[in-house]
Amino acid sequence: MTKQFNYDDLPVIQTKQGKIRGYQSGGTYIFKGIVYARAKRFQKPEEPECWDGIKEAASYGYVSPMLQEDVPNGELMVPHRYWIQNENCQNLNIWTQSLDKMAMRPVLVWFHGGGFSMGSSIEQKAYNGENMSKYGDVVVVTVNHRLNILGYLDLSQYGEKYADSANAGQEDLIAALKWIKENIKEFGGNPQNVTIFGQSGGGMKVSGLMQMKEADGLFQKGIIMSGVPDKSYKYSDKDSTPLITALLEELNFTEDEVEKLEDIPYAQLAQAYNKVSPKLEAEGEYVGCTPKPNDFYKGEGPDVGFRKEATKIPLMIGSVFGEFYMKPQTFFKDEISKEELMKRIGDRFGDWGEELSDVFQEVYPEKNLADLLTLDTVFRCPTKKFIKEFAKSGGKIYSYLFTLEFPYQHGKTAWHCSDIPFVFHNTELVPVTNIPEISDKLEKQMFDAVIHFAETGDPNHLGIPQWPVSTEDREATMIFDRVCTVRFNFDDSLLELYKKALPNLTLANITQEDNQIQH
Amino acid sequence: MTKQFNYDDLPVIQTKQGKIRGYQSGGTYIFKGIVYARAKRFQKPEEPECWDGIKEAASYGYVSPMLQEDVPNGELMVPHRYWIQNENCQNLNIWTQSLDKMAMRPVLVWFHGGGFSMGSSIEQKAYNGENMSKYGDVVVVTVNHRLNILGYLDLSQYGEKYADSANAGQEDLIAALKWIKENIKEFGGNPQNVTIFGQSGGGMKVSGLMQMKEADGLFQKGIIMSGVPDKSYKYSDKDSTPLITALLEELNFTEDEVEKLEDIPYAQLAQAYNKVSPKLEAEGEYVGCTPKPNDFYKGEGPDVGFRKEATKIPLMIGSVFGEFYMKPQTFFKDEISKEELMKRIGDRFGDWGEELSDVFQEVYPEKNLADLLTLDTVFRCPTKKFIKEFAKSGGKIYSYLFTLEFPYQHGKTAWHCSDIPFVFHNTELVPVTNIPEISDKLEKQMFDAVIHFAETGDPNHLGIPQWPVSTEDREATMIFDRVCTVRFNFDDSLLELYKKALPNLTLANITQEDNQIQH
Repeated sequence: MTKQFNYDDLPVIQTKQGKIRGYQSGGTYIFKGIVYARAKRFQKPEEPECWDGIKEAASYGYVSPMLQEDVPNGELMVPHRYWIQNENCQNLNIWTQSLDKMAMRPVLVWFHGGGFSMGSSIEQKAYNGENMSKYGDVVVVTVNHRLNILGYLDLSQYGEKYADSANAGQEDLIAALKWIKENIKEFGGNPQNVTIFGQSGGGMKVSGLMQMKEADGLFQKGIIMSGVPDKSYKYSDKDSTPLITALLEELNFTEDEVEKLEDIPYAQLAQAYNKVSPKLEAEGEYVGCTPKPNDFYKGEGPDVGFRKEATKIPLMIGSVFGEFYMKPQTFFKDEISKEELMKRIGDRFGDWGEELSDVFQEVYPEKNLADLLTLDTVFRCPTKKFIKEFAKSGGKIYSYLFTLEFPYQHGKTAWHCSDIPFVFHNTELVPVTNIPEISDKLEKQMFDAVIHFAETGDPNHLGIPQWPVSTEDREATMIFDRVCTVRFNFDDSLLELYKKALPNLTLANITQEDNQIQH
Repeated sequence: MTKQFNYDDLPVIQTKQGKIRGYQSGGTYIFKGIVYARAKRFQKPEEPECWDGIKEAASYGYVSPMLQEDVPNGELMVPHRYWIQNENCQNLNIWTQSLDKMAMRPVLVWFHGGGFSMGSSIEQKAYNGENMSKYGDVVVVTVNHRLNILGYLDLSQYGEKYADSANAGQEDLIAALKWIKENIKEFGGNPQNVTIFGQSGGGMKVSGLMQMKEADGLFQKGIIMSGVPDKSYKYSDKDSTPLITALLEELNFTEDEVEKLEDIPYAQLAQAYNKVSPKLEAEGEYVGCTPKPNDFYKGEGPDVGFRKEATKIPLMIGSVFGEFYMKPQTFFKDEISKEELMKRIGDRFGDWGEELSDVFQEVYPEKNLADLLTLDTVFRCPTKKFIKEFAKSGGKIYSYLFTLEFPYQHGKTAWHCSDIPFVFHNTELVPVTNIPEISDKLEKQMFDAVIHFAETGDPNHLGIPQWPVSTEDREATMIFDRVCTVRFNFDDSLLELYKKALPNLTLANITQEDNQIQH
């Protein structure tokens, strides 16, 4: 017997629309699947209908339908939770320590990753908010919203009701933040102290909302984890006509029958989209599935400039050492000879191999030279650019890099998502991240930084070295590792050299690259 | 830090087709998503292809596609896990304490519930095999297989290759058992001591395999939990022509184009089936989705007689007190007045109410009279009939009834699936079943009975009263509750009276019934 919940005295909360009944786990109150909005397909979300009586809020709600099914693998590195897919997916989950309206605890709102096309609020085991709420005494909210063509398909030229269709997924997030603003006091949260945070696509959702006027005032801070893509990740503002025309044609609808797209089963819509979009994508046309710069959304800050309101949002931002180099390597670094390693480095980086190796060892004296082969640049470089531009615009921004090596495959560098369990205080849920003598300490350091940041806008706490904000010319990077240190512009030379060696490496082609050098 | 796995030294096992790499959790070796067969749609499963190198076996495999999506609710009572759906779903998961070929531990193979149409090997959190393997020192296997029209759609009259289509899902289970017989020694299991067990539809899969010649010798014992439906649950042996004709018509295929059913996307096939089947079902026609008695499958024992080989399989069989009365009651039994309760009983049972109340209190002196309103009969009565017939045929059978009341909704009687965490030693994973001072003891009693039964064919152990086999005329029922007792034909009178009061109550209409008396 580990713990017992009181199931006969379940917490009931009055929301604006009606009462909901959650449950309690230890000292944490939990509410799941709360509907924050409803929406017709491609249309702007509206407030949910009111109800009488008490709705159950102990089960996770629907997650957005997706265009493709995942292939189950890599569960040791990133354990997943899948859930039931349905278009009525505007719902959120809450973990809190108090139901006192006066508690006014900081609110952390998690936007999940998976680009803008996949994932869910519960896709990864590490997204569970119970520990974060408990150890941080904060209110944690995780959000589901419309994804892929349901959330990001520009139909605006086909009617006023589709005005927001290009960014409907973002509109859902805004609706969630409005719901939070109106209701979170009842859950012990402070509606004036909301931090939005997310990883990968979730980070892009954070930066995206900063550039949407409609979201102003709905959050006060942001954390962007491995969430700044390079320009190969297209936020296309091109005309959507070619895509919609092809879609209608594939479905045997006329140009006048766009409304039929609202009613056909999602599976059919997805099938048609999957058939027509690759060709258009190859031609550089608009294919949806990412936010589209328009009247509602200015475009990403580093590209088009940050909105003045955006620069008022303090940010924590960073990435991890290895990111998309997730597949098993063809060798183990503790077994390979120096000669063989240098050959592999040469194979990859050509004439630049030796110089890169030297600089890598200067920049990362504690790392194995083999780690050069899994060094991420496609997140790190755009992140650095983001930091520079945001600081230049007067924004307050804290930079980090997560460089922990894991005892997996003889010492794997930190992969995409491997930092999430630390941020959520959930390394106990993801065993591979739970390294004896190491993880507990680092988890506390990272977690406390996040909580302090959510409370005050400053991540500094006594458990880490002094972490200054970054300026336009001086990036002050907190290195999260077995020993945490702050370093200044520490990898500029390395990244510049890397770019010379592999000028064409982008987020868009990293996966193929990855397949070439590893298996 | 709770536990650390050794991820740098992962266990690799040689199976007949190739090597697989699992992982270790504490002392338990875990292998997930092992493909035991492959099959073309509607066709007999074949051995998987061989491979070189090492396949990862640390991620759960695909689960069968389903006709309808679930609606998320009731997670406190039955917490779920969903997974990725794909027709290539013939895979299994293994938990074991030893990789010594000489260990020869008993093997327990779990067939999941959800009728023959839904669910998966990991659908419920309680299906996790780690604790069962650890606390019982046994090898646990859980199995995915084809469901609904993929597993049970009779196309046999359309070609020899479809000969097994009516029971393809069962053929998958047989293929899994063959794989186990050939490979389980490598996982420390005894291929000559295999117990198949399942709940609800999973129990029906156990009894079904007993009636299939092809499964003879592949298992030695069986456990059927809440898995004997009454005759309203149709295993139709009617001609499938009306269904297939309607299906072809709906899809605009001719009678000659049955093969096209093999190639269209499942979503399309499911949509057509969902459209045409309700009318045929209402007319009493064959609609698939359950095993069909034919040359391969004799039909259920209580209906058509047990095969001689079936009667050689020792069985444990039972059900739970409340089964499908799962919804919240409109009153709390600790708050309702005697008068109001008698009125409700009268509303439900008419003139029989008073006599039923008296008999109920004689039979269940420890229970609240209000529990009469949630007493299951639609599983209990057919289970009693099964026991009688099996004993009469010379079979060795142990009867149980799980009557635990849970501290939920002011004392909820045991619902369908509430016993599973006890059998798997997983009450710690399902908090509502984890009652202080109660669950640990009962869990050990039930779990040890299951393990002893798997080891020896006899569930008796020192922690429970002597549990005799049942005979044709004397059902010896182990009552699993706060105090375990053995009772003889203890509820015959009650059930007879109940049947007089509600002669038309069946499994098929219990849900409507349920909706009438509760909400």
